[in-house]
Parts: sequence; C-alpha cells; structure tokens
Amino acid sequence: MTKSTDPFKAIANIVSDKNIITNDDQTPYLTEWRQRWPGKAAMIITPENTAQLSQIVKLCAAHKIPVTPQGGNTGLVGGQIPSGPELLVSMKKMRTIHEISPLDNCMIVDAGLTLLEAQEAAKEQNRLFPLSIGSEGSCQIGGILSTNAGGVNVLRYGNSRDLVLGLEAVLPNGEIWNGIKKLRKDNTGYDLKQLFIGGEGTLGIITKAALKLYPVPVQTQTIMAACPHPQAVIELLSLMQSGSGGQISSFEFMERLCIDLVLRHVPNSRDPFSDRFPVYALIELSAGDGDDLESTAQTLLASAMEKGLIADAVIAANDTQRKELWHLRHTISGSLNGEGIGVRNDVSVPTSVIPQFLAQGEQAVKKISPDARIAAFGHVGDGNVHYDIIPAQGAPKNALDDIRDDLENAVYDVIDRFDGSISAEHGIGTHKRTSMALRKSPTEMSLMRAIKKAIDPDGIMNPGKML
Amino acid sequence: MTKSTDPFKAIANIVSDKNIITNDDQTPYLTEWRQRWPGKAAMIITPENTAQLSQIVKLCAAHKIPVTPQGGNTGLVGGQIPSGPELLVSMKKMRTIHEISPLDNCMIVDAGLTLLEAQEAAKEQNRLFPLSIGSEGSCQIGGILSTNAGGVNVLRYGNSRDLVLGLEAVLPNGEIWNGIKKLRKDNTGYDLKQLFIGGEGTLGIITKAALKLYPVPVQTQTIMAACPHPQAVIELLSLMQSGSGGQISSFEFMERLCIDLVLRHVPNSRDPFSDRFPVYALIELSAGDGDDLESTAQTLLASAMEKGLIADAVIAANDTQRKELWHLRHTISGSLNGEGIGVRNDVSVPTSVIPQFLAQGEQAVKKISPDARIAAFGHVGDGNVHYDIIPAQGAPKNALDDIRDDLENAVYDVIDRFDGSISAEHGIGTHKRTSMALRKSPTEMSLMRAIKKAIDPDGIMNPGKML
Repeated sequence: MTKSTDPFKAIANIVSDKNIITNDDQTPYLTEWRQRWPGKAAMIITPENTAQLSQIVKLCAAHKIPVTPQGGNTGLVGGQIPSGPELLVSMKKMRTIHEISPLDNCMIVDAGLTLLEAQEAAKEQNRLFPLSIGSEGSCQIGGILSTNAGGVNVLRYGNSRDLVLGLEAVLPNGEIWNGIKKLRKDNTGYDLKQLFIGGEGTLGIITKAALKLYPVPVQTQTIMAACPHPQAVIELLSLMQSGSGGQISSFEFMERLCIDLVLRHVPNSRDPFSDRFPVYALIELSAGDGDDLESTAQTLLASAMEKGLIADAVIAANDTQRKELWHLRHTISGSLNGEGIGVRNDVSVPTSVIPQFLAQGEQAVKKISPDARIAAFGHVGDGNVHYDIIPAQGAPKNALDDIRDDLENAVYDVIDRFDGSISAEHGIGTHKRTSMALRKSPTEMSLMRAIKKAIDPDGIMNPGKML
Repeated sequence: MTKSTDPFKAIANIVSDKNIITNDDQTPYLTEWRQRWPGKAAMIITPENTAQLSQIVKLCAAHKIPVTPQGGNTGLVGGQIPSGPELLVSMKKMRTIHEISPLDNCMIVDAGLTLLEAQEAAKEQNRLFPLSIGSEGSCQIGGILSTNAGGVNVLRYGNSRDLVLGLEAVLPNGEIWNGIKKLRKDNTGYDLKQLFIGGEGTLGIITKAALKLYPVPVQTQTIMAACPHPQAVIELLSLMQSGSGGQISSFEFMERLCIDLVLRHVPNSRDPFSDRFPVYALIELSAGDGDDLESTAQTLLASAMEKGLIADAVIAANDTQRKELWHLRHTISGSLNGEGIGVRNDVSVPTSVIPQFLAQGEQAVKKISPDARIAAFGHVGDGNVHYDIIPAQGAPKNALDDIRDDLENAVYDVIDRFDGSISAEHGIGTHKRTSMALRKSPTEMSLMRAIKKAIDPDGIMNPGKML
C-alpha cells in the first residue's frame, strides 16, 4: 500500500505524532473502568481542534473507517469502547473555554473540557453550571451531552439535554455542523441538537457546546429525613415541592441496607440518627438571598412530621455537616462493591409507582435468587432508581455471575409493567443494545434506524453501539 | 373511478358523514386569521381517535395524498393552511383527558384539547400547566407542540418543548408511534419526540401528549418598572434573577410607543405612572408559601433603584391591579393594528445584545423608511423581541405594503449579525420558508432534508411548509 492510499498514514499526517497514542499508552483508552468491555482500536488519536477533526472524519468517510468518539471514558454501558477496526478519537485536547456571558447566562466550551472545569469556570463568573455527577472530575462535556447525563440536580435544573442552547458537531461525512446559538427561543426548523444529545456518538461527534448557566444559590438547606416506608418518601417529595415553590434542587432516597453498607465499608462514616429506619431521603433546597430558606425548611418538616411522612430528620447546621450527609449518599455505590459483584440496574418509573416497583422488583429477584440482597437508592425526584442486586451476605463475590442476565431481565420485565425505562441515565452503549431492541416497538426501532441511516448512511459513527 | 379506487370515498367511509366538513362550513378551516394565506383543500375531516386517523393516513400514504394537520388555526406563519390537493385533518374532536397524576406532576391529553382546557384541568387537581399564550382559548395542544409555542412563562418553565414528557403521533406511513411516557429520565435511544415538537406537522401528526405539571404558586408579585434605557432593563433582569433565586416567572419589556398606542386604542386603559419613561419592564415573581415574596420584591427594587436601573416602579397591590398591568402588555399587539398594517417580526437574540439589536434595527429600518415607527416589546427574559414596524402617524394604513419584504429582510440581516433567530416562537410555515432556506447553512438544510426524507419519503406530510 502506498503512502497516498493508506488512510491511517494520512490521518497521522493531519494530527502529527504528538497526537497519536501508541503501544502501552493505549491501555487507559481501551479499558473501561469495570473492565467489562475490553477494547481494541486500529488507531488512537487526540485531535486538537474541530477543523482537524473534520479533515480526519472526511478521510474516514471516504475509506469507510469506523470512528469511536471518547470523552473521559467514564461511561457505564461501554459506549466509549471500540471493538477493533475503529479509529478511536479522544477529545481530551479540545478544551478551550470560548466565552462565558453572565448576562446571557451562557457559556461556550469545547467538548473535551471536564465537567468540573466547566463548573469552576462558571463559578468564577458568579454563575452555576448545575449538572453534577459522581465522575465530574474526569467526564467531559462532549461525553455528558452524548449520553444526556443526569445526576443529583435534575429535579430543579433538568438533564444535560435541558442545559444546552447550541451545539457544534462533526457529522459522519466530516462536515462541520455549526449549531452554536446563545438563544433561549429559536423555532426555525427541526431542533437538530436534540439528535446529538443522547445520541451516544452514533450520529456525529459533538465538538463544542453553548450551555445554560444559572445564578449561584445564596442559601442552601440540606436535610436528611428518615421515613417509615417508600410511599411516605413520595408524598414527602410532593409536599416539599409544592410548599417550597420549586426550590428543591435534590431529592435522593436510600434504603436502610445502603446506609449499613456505607457504615461497614467507609471509614469514619456515621449514621446521623440513633435509631434505624426503613428508608431515608436526602433533600437539598437552594434559593437566592430574598427569602429565609431555613424557616421554609423547618415549616415543611414540621408539616411532614405531623402527617406521619417522616419519623425523624436532621438539618445540616454547617457546610461540614452538609458534606457529611452527601458523603453518605455518594459512597453507596462504592460500598456495594465491597459486598461482591452486583447486578447494577439504572432504571426509572413514574415517581408515583416507585413503592410498587420496589415491591414487585423484590418479588421478581427473590424468585430467581431468594438470598440475593437489593440495595435501592437514587434520584427519587426523577423516578430514577439505582436498583442494585448484590450477593447474599457471606456468599462468594461472584455468586450472581451465572444469573446476571436472568436478574437483569426480571427487573426489566417489572419496569415494562410500569412503562418505565431500562436506562434512566446511563444510556444503551454495548450493554443494553439487545435489551433495547427487544423491548422497544418495531415502529420506534424503525424510526431510529431511519434517522441513523439518513445521517450516517455508511454506519461509520460508533458502530455496534445503541442501534 | 370505481368506489374501491377513490381514496377520498374510502376516507369518508372511515370517518362517516358527521366528520366531514362540507361547503360553506369549510371557510373557518381555510381562512387564516390575518387572511394572508387563503387556503384550499381536497377534503376536510375531523377524525375522532388515533386508530381512525392511522387508517386514514395509511390510505393517504398508499395514494400519495398530501395531508395538512390543523389545531386551533391560530398559527401566525400559515403552517396550518393547505393550498389545494391536501386532506385537511382538523384535530378538534380528539379531546380526551386521559390522566392527571398530581404525584407524577403529569397529565396525558389528546392533541385537540385547547390550551385553556388543559390549564383548567390541571388547576382542578391543584397543579399548574404553565404554558400561557395570547391564543390559549382556541389554540390546541397538538398545535402548540408542533410549533414549540413560547409565551410569557418561558423564563421560568421553558418553551413547549420543555414541558413534554412523551408523545404519540401518527407517522407519514400511517403507523402509530407510541412515545407516551411519564418519565423524567429515559436514555434509551434517540429522543424521537424532539423531532415532532416544533416539526410543524411535517413529520407526522401529534395525537396525544404527556405534559409536565408544576405546583401552583401560592404567592405572586407583579411589578411594572420604568427604566431609563434598554441596557438598564437587561441589567435589571440579571439583578432580579440572581437575587430572587429563580423565582421570576415573567419578564416582559415594552417601549414607550407601545404604551402610547394602548392608551390611544384601548378604552379604560391608563398609564400606571404620572411621568413618561423610555422603556418599561413588566415583571412577575411567584413562589410557594415558604417565603415572603413581597419583601423579596421590595428589596430587589430598592437595590435596582440605587443602581440607577429603574426610575420608578409600581407593585400591584391586588389582583385587580395585577390584571390591569398585564392588560397593558396583552393589548399592545391589537393596538398596533389600529395604526395600520404593520410588518411584524418575531425575532430573538442573546439577551445581552438586545440594546445593540434595537439600535441597529432602527438604523436599518429608517434607511428604508425614515418615517416608519418601531414598536418593540416582548419576552426580554428569553431574548425574544416582537419587533413591529408600523406606518408613520397619519400615513395610509397600507403605507408599508410595498416595502414589506425589504423591511423584513433588513431586520433579518441585523438578526444574523447577532447570531439571532428570524423566528423565535412563531415557526416557519409558509411565511418564512424562503428566508430560512437562504439564511441557514447548506449543511443544516441538508441535515433537515435528510431527516424529512427518512421519515416522510414521499413528502405527504404538510408539504410546502418549513422545508
């Protein structure tokens, strides 16, 4: 093969050696953090700007070379891991902050910036970029938008989708689509950005985004409430939403087992209550300086207690206590690892049926494995339950390995009964591709395939993912 | 043509005589309210349910009969008016309220329900459906979603797009896509509903929607502020957004000319101030019962006055005064009609450049017509300006008719300088189709056409609109 006909040589010429990842340096790009989907790639590059990336994708399109875009490699369903013939495009070097406009409540940044860097840049201009997820130190803007990431502030500020004013993307034919806008209203044609958001890189590579910013809250109240049963948690949410006039920014729940496992595995963790309760809600309210948020919180808690919705409650008196309460929530996922290899489900149902889902989910799981334990927690305000099944206490770490698929399908069957989602915030990727195709209607699958075919006729963009 | 081969006879058999609009009864369906796009249709029907509509569209697909869906016929760009060979489908008889779930903050309704009926149904369950626009008594849910309608509460609650959890639609091939979900989080594949929202009926007919509801605000503060110049209005918005912690639900602005014309044309209207000011902001804050919104409002106004952002202000002391202030705002559009036939522009720019847009817009207009008057008002919190050009005082009513296109294009040119939108909330329809195609990039136009072709390969859905 002569130099002129080898597209990978041509790509190397475009990006130059310093942007090609070779040999041993490749491992972090090809290894997913739970090592479930080991990767392989024909070449790994780190382009420096959109124009360069556009040139490269044009070459890939001409030679039908598949392309896998990768952000911070924090995805949970394998969507960022290539399987062999792909050009892996890491976005890590595209990290310019182009503009922060406090008056427009808008920030324009490159796709390779980490979420934490974006949050901090906004904060410097006295604005809030409200998206907050566990991996924020390493996940990148392009990745969170491609997967429509959720997190702990969705209740008030929405998912990633709701935080985007405009996008730029490199299309499967290598053309640059400039959809960067700082507009709150624009009804001129189809809202194309919506396809790339949550598109998992199958329709193009997001290179830049105009993001919504918000005023920084001046007051915060963080509450841990102990509730008698899941139904009480749902009613507490409703009471607090109505009573606070929409000032709840987070409303998380966790079953008692979650607390027990945190106490067991996380050094220096402590139960904020002296008694044990079946279920807990971690609630955060935030507001400007106009009102007295503490008295709002206290009034609402008193009313909830009177109605029997909460058995006990603590309000964080200072930032240290606030962090302690959040630490309990954030260390649940890691603590579960200490109990063996779990079957982690990220599902959602309408908020009102969460108690029924929990009951029917338990029945379904126990039918397959009577001893398996269920640790349910998550963003109850969004109907989003992290429904994690772990081995029986003292059982081998891999006790669930042989029944993993059965458990997953059993939970999905219960989800289907409630018209829920088998992937609330993690996406489809490699992991849930078959399950999605089986569970969506033929009409919906055809619509999705028609769109994929229209925008990426040769199927070079992140093949084998989602569709 | 035998009965079996005449598709219109087959359609008649499906819907039955009572759902066919004949002869003189057709006028209201074919006449747009400003009579700018006189319509014609091959047949007008009012199907009663989704199954019936699906059968009909299957017939249309087989015979390549074009279809124009119509809601309340309140559209401002001609998108709902057919031009001759189309089957006009009025959705007015599909008006079931399927479910209202206060705990899920969700309501599932048919597309033919009017916005006002939807608002009232929500209110009966102590919930708010926050979309509010001038035509709410007659516009229908399907129409507002197909045009992604905005209105006066966008600042807090978003456009129509932001209020949708799920959709059902009849596709161009007649199949029913059931995308009704009551989920706040669902990352399973492309978010298909986004294509139908704002799609102006070119990709299918929305038949049902799952809509977001909110707690009903308990407190409201309505303020009219008089400002020295447009820049002060923008800074006032920023100050109040930050200070109130996101409790502003409306932030409208109007130039002095708008007030003058309301006082001239609307009986019993009165200026809330004794002095004249260049520009005004109508601001509404709303909250739950936890805080003291009146003191928040007063603190913020005092701070704004100290900074020189407002020259004077009134706070509505009761609901009568509140309605009087809103009446001033709502009667602007009608008052302008009394001054001749205007060139009405519904545009948007990033909020921060509104003052520059106003200045450069005026220059551009005066260059074409030195005597023409400009009445700018609108949803400044969303960067959305209704930039209306009216004849000089005393000039003939139709003085601008010959230069209508020139004025429109001149305003659009200024909009392009600021990366704004030539249609902030009214859509494209027939009216702005050519302008959009000229002003969008070839890449964006190709993407839109590829999607249209993928979902509606024979182009039978609302042909001649948008694309």
